[in-house]
Amino acid sequence: MVWSGVGLPLECVAVPGVLLRTGDVLVEVELATVCGSDVHTARGHRPADKPLVLGHEQVGRIVAVAEQSYSANGMPLRMGQRVVWSVTVACGTCSRCRRGLPQKCHELAKYGHERMQRGWELSGGFATHVQVRAGTAIVVVDEQVPATVLAPASCATATVVAALGSASALVPLAGATVLVTGAGMLGVTACAMATDAGAVVVVSDPDAARRQLALAFGAAAVADPGAPYESPTGVASVLTALQRAGAAEPTIALELSGAGSAVQTALDLIGIGGVVVLVGSVSPGEAVLLDSESIVRRLVTVRGVHNYTPGDLAQAVTYLSGAWHRHPFSALVGRTFHLSQADAALALAATALHPRVGITSQQPATLG
Amino acid sequence: MVWSGVGLPLECVAVPGVLLRTGDVLVEVELATVCGSDVHTARGHRPADKPLVLGHEQVGRIVAVAEQSYSANGMPLRMGQRVVWSVTVACGTCSRCRRGLPQKCHELAKYGHERMQRGWELSGGFATHVQVRAGTAIVVVDEQVPATVLAPASCATATVVAALGSASALVPLAGATVLVTGAGMLGVTACAMATDAGAVVVVSDPDAARRQLALAFGAAAVADPGAPYESPTGVASVLTALQRAGAAEPTIALELSGAGSAVQTALDLIGIGGVVVLVGSVSPGEAVLLDSESIVRRLVTVRGVHNYTPGDLAQAVTYLSGAWHRHPFSALVGRTFHLSQADAALALAATALHPRVGITSQQPATLG
Repeated sequence: MVWSGVGLPLECVAVPGVLLRTGDVLVEVELATVCGSDVHTARGHRPADKPLVLGHEQVGRIVAVAEQSYSANGMPLRMGQRVVWSVTVACGTCSRCRRGLPQKCHELAKYGHERMQRGWELSGGFATHVQVRAGTAIVVVDEQVPATVLAPASCATATVVAALGSASALVPLAGATVLVTGAGMLGVTACAMATDAGAVVVVSDPDAARRQLALAFGAAAVADPGAPYESPTGVASVLTALQRAGAAEPTIALELSGAGSAVQTALDLIGIGGVVVLVGSVSPGEAVLLDSESIVRRLVTVRGVHNYTPGDLAQAVTYLSGAWHRHPFSALVGRTFHLSQADAALALAATALHPRVGITSQQPATLG
Repeated sequence: MVWSGVGLPLECVAVPGVLLRTGDVLVEVELATVCGSDVHTARGHRPADKPLVLGHEQVGRIVAVAEQSYSANGMPLRMGQRVVWSVTVACGTCSRCRRGLPQKCHELAKYGHERMQRGWELSGGFATHVQVRAGTAIVVVDEQVPATVLAPASCATATVVAALGSASALVPLAGATVLVTGAGMLGVTACAMATDAGAVVVVSDPDAARRQLALAFGAAAVADPGAPYESPTGVASVLTALQRAGAAEPTIALELSGAGSAVQTALDLIGIGGVVVLVGSVSPGEAVLLDSESIVRRLVTVRGVHNYTPGDLAQAVTYLSGAWHRHPFSALVGRTFHLSQADAALALAATALHPRVGITSQQPATLG
């Protein structure tokens, strides 16, 4: 399904022949999920070269393998394997790849983000098939794990792994109080993951249903910052929630909403020696006032996280394979549409009623 | 010499008897140096409980030892040893000490910062003697190293070790381009230390003499941001200096000046995956605008560093013991005054003509 511009319906386009190059695999998509950034692109809130195939969260099965196709852990890939793959294609050799920043590769390409081009028409998940190129981290997944649990791995889950890793490199998760602002797909994933790692998690979100969901994913307490996020209300409501949870001052804050006032709340509330990880700010927003003296005297660290590394994706899959028994991950895909109704899927996703909306060209009832 | 308030001359006060408690040592001060924060306190730019004895950068010799007095590396201390010691006294048992943040100990006391109190009158370096209390990191130093080199270890040098350690925990120094804003005592120390670790250092400072000094301490190029630091000029001048040095984009920035516009310049210029360490902002200043989206998309880390840990002080002494042969550290103390002329020392320090001004009760000519 091809997106050609704001307000235009997605168009069904047939790609008659696919030429796999060395290292490529062809994957039949089992289920794709709609990420917030797919909605942003479709609505014209971020620049995109059209026409393009949206979708970068999906799980599928390998139906063709070129020579020298390997998984992220170096194993040869085989027909029939069920896989997820990274949102980014990286060269692996440029200075940024060598520095451990493949998501900022000088030759970067991203699934669901690229103008359709001859030889790589199948570049997004809202399709029957995706041509997964050499330079993509591919992770083989268990047959037992539901597709609804696995599809978000390559964006939401792996990004949360990266964000928590970025924090826990400086402050151990076990025993920490973690403040999460934003209880969407990433927020509830962060709740579950941080709670499982021994942290006490307090979540702030202006939406009541999302706050309920955060509690179902392990949050010790939730806060209503007022809608839209208001900084003074935000701080006061979180302080109350911390008290209710009997929690210490937060030494980790994950800002997943992208709201400037939520960034401000996280900066205001982070404890001495703590770390604020900014993740949600992926579109232009209000600038936030940084009080340098307070950052210095409190020894605070602020880190930006964007996308993730192959190791983060592998860890996301490992986590989900065990955690879906403990947390209601499979319920996060509120509804699944047939691929031919991808427009309806995008429209429902835009309401943010469900953390995720699914798209599949298979019979929805047959989904694992 | 006791400070009793803004505009008042320091007063000479005799302390007739000193009662050492378990773990204490009494040190005869060989040389103290005047830190910028001594000047700030004396001028009333920061809150302080008076009367107090200023001074927290000094080297001296142990003249009395209580029971169970140990150095930072656990060795028993002896009479006659030449030592430096941390600016902080920490309990070692509270939650912050256990988290590796002794500089934020719940029972924190700081040399040169405390109201004179019975039983700890000798709490600052502008004195003939200092009572160094249990809970202070004490490091034994070589007889061969000049006092002018060693006195700043317990503030300037150890803080630079902490700042570079905070950066290099995330980005290796070897091969990195390091931007340093502010070429005072900390700035030139950072130049030497980062250069010795294999980095290319570019320094920005509005003062021409300081820029010259930075070059003498290993800077590859220097930039004039305009006085006082101007953000647009700051960015442009640093870009020119980077080009002149043939340097890559900076992936480490140390902000040592405390100027809001220098903080902004560092945030604007830091490269992808880079880290900005804020150190200089220790008094209230203008807030800086933080562009969260840019922090996220560039995967930038911003870290505040305030004071340091015992390990940083030990590393500072080790560094200086070798580095003073390679870099003109001994020339950084521009002039040394007798203790009775400490007011004149403070006045000269306030002009910032010299990176440091010394104070001693010994014959200045006898200083090592």
